[in-house]
Amino acid sequence: MTAATSVVAGETLPSSMRASVLTGALKISMDERAVPTPALHQVLVHVSKVGVCGSDIHYYREGRVGPFVVDAPLVLGHELSGRIVAVGEGVDTSRIGERVAVEPQKPCRLCSQCKAGRYNLCPFMEFYATPPIDGAFCEYVVIESDFAHAVPDAVSDEAAALIEPLSVGIAASRKARIVPGSRVLIAGAGPIGVIATQAARAFGAAEVIVSDPVAERRAMAMRFGATSTIDPMTEDSRPLKVDAFVDACGIPRAIVSGLESLRGAGVAVLVGTGFDEVSMPIPTIMNNELVVTSVFRYTDTWPLGAHLVASGQVDLDSLVTSRFDLDTVEDALNADKNPDNLKTIVEAK
Amino acid sequence: MTAATSVVAGETLPSSMRASVLTGALKISMDERAVPTPALHQVLVHVSKVGVCGSDIHYYREGRVGPFVVDAPLVLGHELSGRIVAVGEGVDTSRIGERVAVEPQKPCRLCSQCKAGRYNLCPFMEFYATPPIDGAFCEYVVIESDFAHAVPDAVSDEAAALIEPLSVGIAASRKARIVPGSRVLIAGAGPIGVIATQAARAFGAAEVIVSDPVAERRAMAMRFGATSTIDPMTEDSRPLKVDAFVDACGIPRAIVSGLESLRGAGVAVLVGTGFDEVSMPIPTIMNNELVVTSVFRYTDTWPLGAHLVASGQVDLDSLVTSRFDLDTVEDALNADKNPDNLKTIVEAK
Amino acid sequence: MTAATSVVAGETLPSSMRASVLTGALKISMDERAVPTPALHQVLVHVSKVGVCGSDIHYYREGRVGPFVVDAPLVLGHELSGRIVAVGEGVDTSRIGERVAVEPQKPCRLCSQCKAGRYNLCPFMEFYATPPIDGAFCEYVVIESDFAHAVPDAVSDEAAALIEPLSVGIAASRKARIVPGSRVLIAGAGPIGVIATQAARAFGAAEVIVSDPVAERRAMAMRFGATSTIDPMTEDSRPLKVDAFVDACGIPRAIVSGLESLRGAGVAVLVGTGFDEVSMPIPTIMNNELVVTSVFRYTDTWPLGAHLVASGQVDLDSLVTSRFDLDTVEDALNADKNPDNLKTIVEAK
Amino acid sequence: MTAATSVVAGETLPSSMRASVLTGALKISMDERAVPTPALHQVLVHVSKVGVCGSDIHYYREGRVGPFVVDAPLVLGHELSGRIVAVGEGVDTSRIGERVAVEPQKPCRLCSQCKAGRYNLCPFMEFYATPPIDGAFCEYVVIESDFAHAVPDAVSDEAAALIEPLSVGIAASRKARIVPGSRVLIAGAGPIGVIATQAARAFGAAEVIVSDPVAERRAMAMRFGATSTIDPMTEDSRPLKVDAFVDACGIPRAIVSGLESLRGAGVAVLVGTGFDEVSMPIPTIMNNELVVTSVFRYTDTWPLGAHLVASGQVDLDSLVTSRFDLDTVEDALNADKNPDNLKTIVEAK
Repeated sequence: MTAATSVVAGETLPSSMRASVLTGALKISMDERAVPTPALHQVLVHVSKVGVCGSDIHYYREGRVGPFVVDAPLVLGHELSGRIVAVGEGVDTSRIGERVAVEPQKPCRLCSQCKAGRYNLCPFMEFYATPPIDGAFCEYVVIESDFAHAVPDAVSDEAAALIEPLSVGIAASRKARIVPGSRVLIAGAGPIGVIATQAARAFGAAEVIVSDPVAERRAMAMRFGATSTIDPMTEDSRPLKVDAFVDACGIPRAIVSGLESLRGAGVAVLVGTGFDEVSMPIPTIMNNELVVTSVFRYTDTWPLGAHLVASGQVDLDSLVTSRFDLDTVEDALNADKNPDNLKTIVEAK
Repeated sequence: MTAATSVVAGETLPSSMRASVLTGALKISMDERAVPTPALHQVLVHVSKVGVCGSDIHYYREGRVGPFVVDAPLVLGHELSGRIVAVGEGVDTSRIGERVAVEPQKPCRLCSQCKAGRYNLCPFMEFYATPPIDGAFCEYVVIESDFAHAVPDAVSDEAAALIEPLSVGIAASRKARIVPGSRVLIAGAGPIGVIATQAARAFGAAEVIVSDPVAERRAMAMRFGATSTIDPMTEDSRPLKVDAFVDACGIPRAIVSGLESLRGAGVAVLVGTGFDEVSMPIPTIMNNELVVTSVFRYTDTWPLGAHLVASGQVDLDSLVTSRFDLDTVEDALNADKNPDNLKTIVEAK
Repeated sequence: MTAATSVVAGETLPSSMRASVLTGALKISMDERAVPTPALHQVLVHVSKVGVCGSDIHYYREGRVGPFVVDAPLVLGHELSGRIVAVGEGVDTSRIGERVAVEPQKPCRLCSQCKAGRYNLCPFMEFYATPPIDGAFCEYVVIESDFAHAVPDAVSDEAAALIEPLSVGIAASRKARIVPGSRVLIAGAGPIGVIATQAARAFGAAEVIVSDPVAERRAMAMRFGATSTIDPMTEDSRPLKVDAFVDACGIPRAIVSGLESLRGAGVAVLVGTGFDEVSMPIPTIMNNELVVTSVFRYTDTWPLGAHLVASGQVDLDSLVTSRFDLDTVEDALNADKNPDNLKTIVEAK
Repeated sequence: MTAATSVVAGETLPSSMRASVLTGALKISMDERAVPTPALHQVLVHVSKVGVCGSDIHYYREGRVGPFVVDAPLVLGHELSGRIVAVGEGVDTSRIGERVAVEPQKPCRLCSQCKAGRYNLCPFMEFYATPPIDGAFCEYVVIESDFAHAVPDAVSDEAAALIEPLSVGIAASRKARIVPGSRVLIAGAGPIGVIATQAARAFGAAEVIVSDPVAERRAMAMRFGATSTIDPMTEDSRPLKVDAFVDACGIPRAIVSGLESLRGAGVAVLVGTGFDEVSMPIPTIMNNELVVTSVFRYTDTWPLGAHLVASGQVDLDSLVTSRFDLDTVEDALNADKNPDNLKTIVEAK
């Protein structure tokens, strides 16, 4: 695919752009790179806002996340919004100018998982900011056209970027089979816990009980829709007998406690990370026919995410507590050291 | 409900019967008890054959199974067949004389689990041979009429009794979402593993790979429908990427290995018991969106079980390797010490 | 079961009560009847409010509904609230005094439909106000304890009565697989259409388009949560390609039009009645793999209904446009002749 | 994509081929056409056997099927097997030489239906032998690589071609929710009815009752796995109360009768065609919460189809009653005029 086959907006696109790259643990530098050209069915997005995810921080601090090692310069960032400025072959030029939230994944579309509707599990997935695929701490990115989702004016650029973590909350609510009237326990009131709380309410949960040992975090969960909170150091969630449990902290003790808090045939969805092994209470799972599962990426969540934000059912803007630009990405990656920080945004333009 | 409201067959029923009772760990004795009277919607069954289950052996050896303690004389045995000899009010007398396989549970029918179709999870369940509910190592038992399932002539009394463990295999196949063409890994070729293998084939599994470290057990699995076997001491099941994994051994290493052998979105069903805690590989579950669940009792499995046996799709008769009578229940409970023993039957009449 | 086994509240219950009975088409009279005694697992409810349903009107005008013929005096009314004043054996006396919404059905709990969780399809169902089972246009009724659902103070007696039609809307939303973000078309803005609209919104529908030829009804649908409306006489719903279609009018033309308005794999739920046969567009169903189904009664809808009303997500109180008492039931059954009437209540006390 | 990017087998491919084309109603002629070149992710298949479908016959006789009009020369035939003789870019050359059954559809892979796993409902589908897409009554065809399914030696070329109609039977069994033990009614013992019967048995149906007015067809259904048959002219299927009904004849009276033969919550799958409108018994659907749906093409059926044939669970070879070659396609399209004919094959080489 040559540049000739893609269409560019009225404005003249630069040939090069700035990109913040990670070259190893704790090593961030600014790079000058060619602006990518959208291929068949792709669009070129001028990046606006990019959220900082825990995995970005992990790559920055450790130079790896599990089996994924940064052994070549990598652009981090996979929660992003922007505007389409050029389109590849097969994409209607009317899309140029559109404000979009980017679903940062490119499945193969050919394998059995893709064809079964589970493209998130595609073994050939190319995912932003996962070696060797670059992410969005830069000025321009390309993405498949159908993974660049139009957002209405009611959704800010920051909120549009945060439809990515909201997508995790939506996927968790679906997996947890949350329906109107459900009673849900969520462990952890960090960004994902707070977003999962909002998603659970949007799915109709009548009760969302959030467990977190930090009082300020519990207070924040209440502001974002929790119906009650629990301090796991002093209160026991096990008598709750909830329909669904979403772990958003990754702590083994919280996971076990959450499982023990489920009613018969209840569903546990593991979202929090941190431990490679957790000792699970087998009789609890067996005697109650619990279902333990997880979410890995997402499928078909952006349109719903945009709707939930535009309709006011989910508030993503209020999650943002600090902002940086492409020159201060390293500061953005260290912002979580401030205990009051909830969600960090990198402003790419 | 008085005896006057129940109808008895032409033969005169005795007023008392023999029952083998467990009075504590390793203490079995013969008791003389009143023949029970079927209440509203119940039938009286003259017991024919009773299978010995691992839980019977566990109660006998330990005097308890988990939280269930034998603190009063308990009749063991919950895998049984027999013939209806009397009916309670509300049951058509035409049922008298019917050969039946007994589903040994009595749910409350009133709670939300019962009304949702999950009567196996009824918190008020009365289950045979679980303190304080007596089981079937005796001459007569009562059961709700709709839990006494007619069996055709093609199903022997022994096979009819073993529809109970087959029900576990059926429930596991359903939970594992086994459908025509599925590829299934089963860990453990004991009675439950062999029955789960047969059930998986009856559900249409194209491949059933059975893992067991004992060569004789692997050979037996092949005789009962496995399409191939694995020796977990020398072979690695992880490249298999099966659709479903059924653990029928309870060994932590086998469970972990089974999880790692699943394709994305695969389902693991834990059936084997033995360990209260198993250290689970969380990234494996998360990165593949695995579903981990279990079976606890069963719902609506007897009619299918009878059909699978009558049609020859499942062979239960060949599982029986030793037989005892009510006077030798203690020997029956020790028969598993013979490594060649697979399934033990107590002949109640 | 004798009166001796039931417990009565502090107040002395009368031995007889007033009941409005239908003795044939257009024949309503007042009867003096014995106050019923709650049997095992039953409660006695002092009736407060009773909604008038289209089926009540149909029985009144025609003396029958389909195969159900009024050939003996019948008490109509099956949408009701009240207060528990006595309990039968097996019910905790603490329930006496409780304000309840009544789920007006008594399934057998023994058949395969009941045990599969579909108790609404029980072939032995005893349903209020369906010959020969009496309904609630009277002072006292008995109901199984678990079908008398406690309601919080935030739910008025009238709203509690109307949880019955709301249950139809909830059941329709479930059957229509309405989830957050769904686009839904509802045909008919009568009481059921308006309630289905509210239910669809409570299930998260992003768009609920209501079709009705009457402008006033369309305006009312908008007040109750429709996101837009269509006049089927002048506007075409077929380009909508909605996820779900709920027919709440029963008119063949509307049903066909609704089917043609569905996206591939969309679901149609038929709720409206009136025609025994409707000519269906088979290629539309086939080429789009549509799912056409219906709701018949409901299972497990009252707790959710009470929650939706108490939380303000559904407004039932505003539906009530006219009120009558037991002496004027005939007027209540004729109130629908006023085109401005939406929902009629009979005040039993 | 130029020919240079595709790889050809050792043999030299011809540059042109023979193709039987339909130029209008009842007009078949032989055409000389260029051998197509496999594009990215495509393979070139040397066609072996092609089944004749009712839709081929309909196009031949009427020059159209519903909205699809033959207004340019069209190659018919969409049930086919063959051998891969060349591959396009992105396909491993090791596939050359492989015997394959062709899934004759090319979805866009980009739309929401494709991404949801319902690629059969893709609105941009290109389907063989549906104007303007050519089919397989010719020597060579191209198909996406993942839609050319390898078949084992145990599956003959004719059986491999007939995995296409078997796929309809598999899709119908899935939609009909047929599981081990199901009771199924199938209307019509033509090719699709007989294949649906075999599929239902392979899905574990305990009973498959086939209804057909012709005695010879009923006898054939019995040979292919029906457990019993009904003559709809003299016998009433309504008391059967089956779990699932598959219509394979399209006749209104049979459809209505099938709906009335379902148990509560039973599923009807409409497969037979012929009438654009069928008058449906609405109260029957409503009062039993029936589910009426259909199958349109298929997803993920070929691997299972190949397994069912290879394992002997389904017999496709015995369905073939007449064979023709590319020169006698017109005779093949008229073979159904012989009442003894069941399935016709065109041998392309």
